[in-house]
Amino acid sequence: MLPFFIIKNIENKICFLSETDSRHAIKVLRMKNNDELTVINGFGLYGLAEIIDANPKKTKIKIGRIRQEKKPVHLGLAFCPTKSNDRNGLIIEKATEIGVTDFYPLTSQNSERRKWNFEKFNKVLVSAVKQSQQFWTPKIHEIQNYYNFISSNLGIDLKFLAHCKELKKNKIKELSNPMKSQLIVVGPEGDFTLEELKLAEENNFKMISLGQNRLRTETACIVGISIMKL
Amino acid sequence: MLPFFIIKNIENKICFLSETDSRHAIKVLRMKNNDELTVINGFGLYGLAEIIDANPKKTKIKIGRIRQEKKPVHLGLAFCPTKSNDRNGLIIEKATEIGVTDFYPLTSQNSERRKWNFEKFNKVLVSAVKQSQQFWTPKIHEIQNYYNFISSNLGIDLKFLAHCKELKKNKIKELSNPMKSQLIVVGPEGDFTLEELKLAEENNFKMISLGQNRLRTETACIVGISIMKL
Repeated sequence: MLPFFIIKNIENKICFLSETDSRHAIKVLRMKNNDELTVINGFGLYGLAEIIDANPKKTKIKIGRIRQEKKPVHLGLAFCPTKSNDRNGLIIEKATEIGVTDFYPLTSQNSERRKWNFEKFNKVLVSAVKQSQQFWTPKIHEIQNYYNFISSNLGIDLKFLAHCKELKKNKIKELSNPMKSQLIVVGPEGDFTLEELKLAEENNFKMISLGQNRLRTETACIVGISIMKL
Repeated sequence: MLPFFIIKNIENKICFLSETDSRHAIKVLRMKNNDELTVINGFGLYGLAEIIDANPKKTKIKIGRIRQEKKPVHLGLAFCPTKSNDRNGLIIEKATEIGVTDFYPLTSQNSERRKWNFEKFNKVLVSAVKQSQQFWTPKIHEIQNYYNFISSNLGIDLKFLAHCKELKKNKIKELSNPMKSQLIVVGPEGDFTLEELKLAEENNFKMISLGQNRLRTETACIVGISIMKL
């Protein structure tokens, strides 16, 4: 498999890898002139390219014919960021690899973190996109309030919410369908309140269970997304 | 939910938490005399207990009636440990939370790591068991050779192997069944060789796909286990 690199102006025949990417290509991957790579713009355009100057600071490449990969079906993950940014990074990295298209960070009544610097996680996301060889970069939306998000018209076919309360819940594998647009909302460590759950039900969210074990937020995100994607 | 603690000799009415657990209970969770906790022995025995001396070095507890939780159905994860012990730790932590009962570290032709100090990961495992509130501690088996493992009589109902080669593969969700004993084998970053895949097929392993995205070893382990468990 050829290594993936993201290039903004992929329509130009001749362009340069960024300084970080140049170093990675030449110093880490030890690529040389005439070696091939795949370039993507993160919005579905991709093409085969060739190194014409293996400069470790500013690698020059020549891009061949550009093609368009169709946008994947919406797979949304809404979650309340945890206290630990390591664990938030893990959510972004793993869910991107698996195929999430949209991240919706939320603040809810029991949220542990209300500020969220999404710029910080863009690096993690870009690296996961390249590593897992996808053509579209997921979007991390601005952090928003649970109430506004849940009651807004999201235009998504299948909406799920995972919580730990002992209420009637569905099996996610029986309801999910990767051919339809989907969204899962995962609660904070302190769980959603009954009031929050009521609001979600009123807005056609299906309550789902992720099994009997008590999962941490980041594990619940990864497990839910895995089942919805495959 | 009451916090979980592991106690070896759970049959004794009166016992002490270990020094680490005592500190955790009293200093971190701020537990006091008469506060309740759940004690497990990691082999299915559990009971309700009460703190009778909230000593942060040696907490004394009184254990109530002991019950036996039935052993969960076998859910095995065989994988080639990665170079990075952070990522190996992640496999152990997340797969334990989700419900793996047996870990089988393997060395294969393209293994990145041939030595494996499983003691190191026991802490991660114990902490994940307590956190996810399970009654049985998974077992980390000794590291073994892929050939010996695959050709041995494992006595497992459903055996899967995930690889990245473009060969005919099955959808794991169509074959897996959490009511039966199951095992998944996940390849190293360099993948299994054709010879290794042939051996697995001869030994009734079903080749499965975990979707189109190229997943890292630790992500493949977590995704596979999620689908098999739920």
